[in-house]
Amino acid sequence: MKHLQILKSQVELDLKDYKMIGEPTVNQTRKLKDLTGIFQDDNAFSEIDLEQMAYTVQTWLPVSEGTPSGLFFGVSTIYPGKVGNEYFMTKGHFHAQSDRAEFYWGVQGKGMLILMNRDRYTWAEEVYPGSLHYIGGEIAHRLANTGDEKLIVGACWPSDAGHDYEEIAVNGFSARLVEMDGKPKLI
Amino acid sequence: MKHLQILKSQVELDLKDYKMIGEPTVNQTRKLKDLTGIFQDDNAFSEIDLEQMAYTVQTWLPVSEGTPSGLFFGVSTIYPGKVGNEYFMTKGHFHAQSDRAEFYWGVQGKGMLILMNRDRYTWAEEVYPGSLHYIGGEIAHRLANTGDEKLIVGACWPSDAGHDYEEIAVNGFSARLVEMDGKPKLI
Repeated sequence: MKHLQILKSQVELDLKDYKMIGEPTVNQTRKLKDLTGIFQDDNAFSEIDLEQMAYTVQTWLPVSEGTPSGLFFGVSTIYPGKVGNEYFMTKGHFHAQSDRAEFYWGVQGKGMLILMNRDRYTWAEEVYPGSLHYIGGEIAHRLANTGDEKLIVGACWPSDAGHDYEEIAVNGFSARLVEMDGKPKLI
Repeated sequence: MKHLQILKSQVELDLKDYKMIGEPTVNQTRKLKDLTGIFQDDNAFSEIDLEQMAYTVQTWLPVSEGTPSGLFFGVSTIYPGKVGNEYFMTKGHFHAQSDRAEFYWGVQGKGMLILMNRDRYTWAEEVYPGSLHYIGGEIAHRLANTGDEKLIVGACWPSDAGHDYEEIAVNGFSARLVEMDGKPKLI
């Protein structure tokens, strides 16, 4: 019984790097070897150290995955680097319950939020400390690190959104974010 | 047509004070005169400057209120002060779609998130920079500033959650957060 009690929340956030401290958080790591097939340059990919870290995702799931009307809170950290001229990036996904939205906000570093709608139009939004991004339903999303330090992004999304990685794994995005003349460009 | 374009998001967040800069944000202000009836000490309330600010809420509503599966992002700023021995606080509410959850996280200052379930059990969680709070469905929530500076709290919630202020306006919370021996206490 917690009536009249003053408690601490179970999870605490370091506001500088968004590391979450507390019991019910889940940590996922993706090394380059987990991203086979998502970069264009096979030669460059074959020559790179596949054990190096590509990104991590830390999530607080206060309710179980699939619960209607709940929310999750997460932090994505994308490491700096390129495969050929293509920046390190996340796999990217639509939501399984595909109309579910999501908020992202930049915390540290520099990158791009690559977005694609169901008509396969692809565009991007610049991610930097304080950039705030609304990702509407039916929009695939992927983060790329275009800078020299870690890109750290906060996120909040519905607990019944789920992830549909399959569509992107099979068909990809309709454009790639590459470095041209020292600047990121969608081609 | 934005295919292949690199854009800036419409709204930017100052990560220090969570002020949102950008067009589609909405600002609400609540002065003490807007909070008539929520504090216990009528004498103290009658002697206070009712034109002083109690709190502000800034919200980005990328979709219209009531849209299913969307999200809103907001910032609450509660000013420091007391009415008698009771801290300045927000009106508090259940969600109108009462099963909808919400995330709060402390950004600046010091306070309490006062929570009450449908059985009218009331408890609180300490709010401070980095405290992260999951407010499940069917839980009324209210913020109180227990410190000497502004309490700033970030929030993310479903765009179809809505606000039910009525239940709290009529029946209140079952406990009050007051200062006793210099410390906040639920009584």
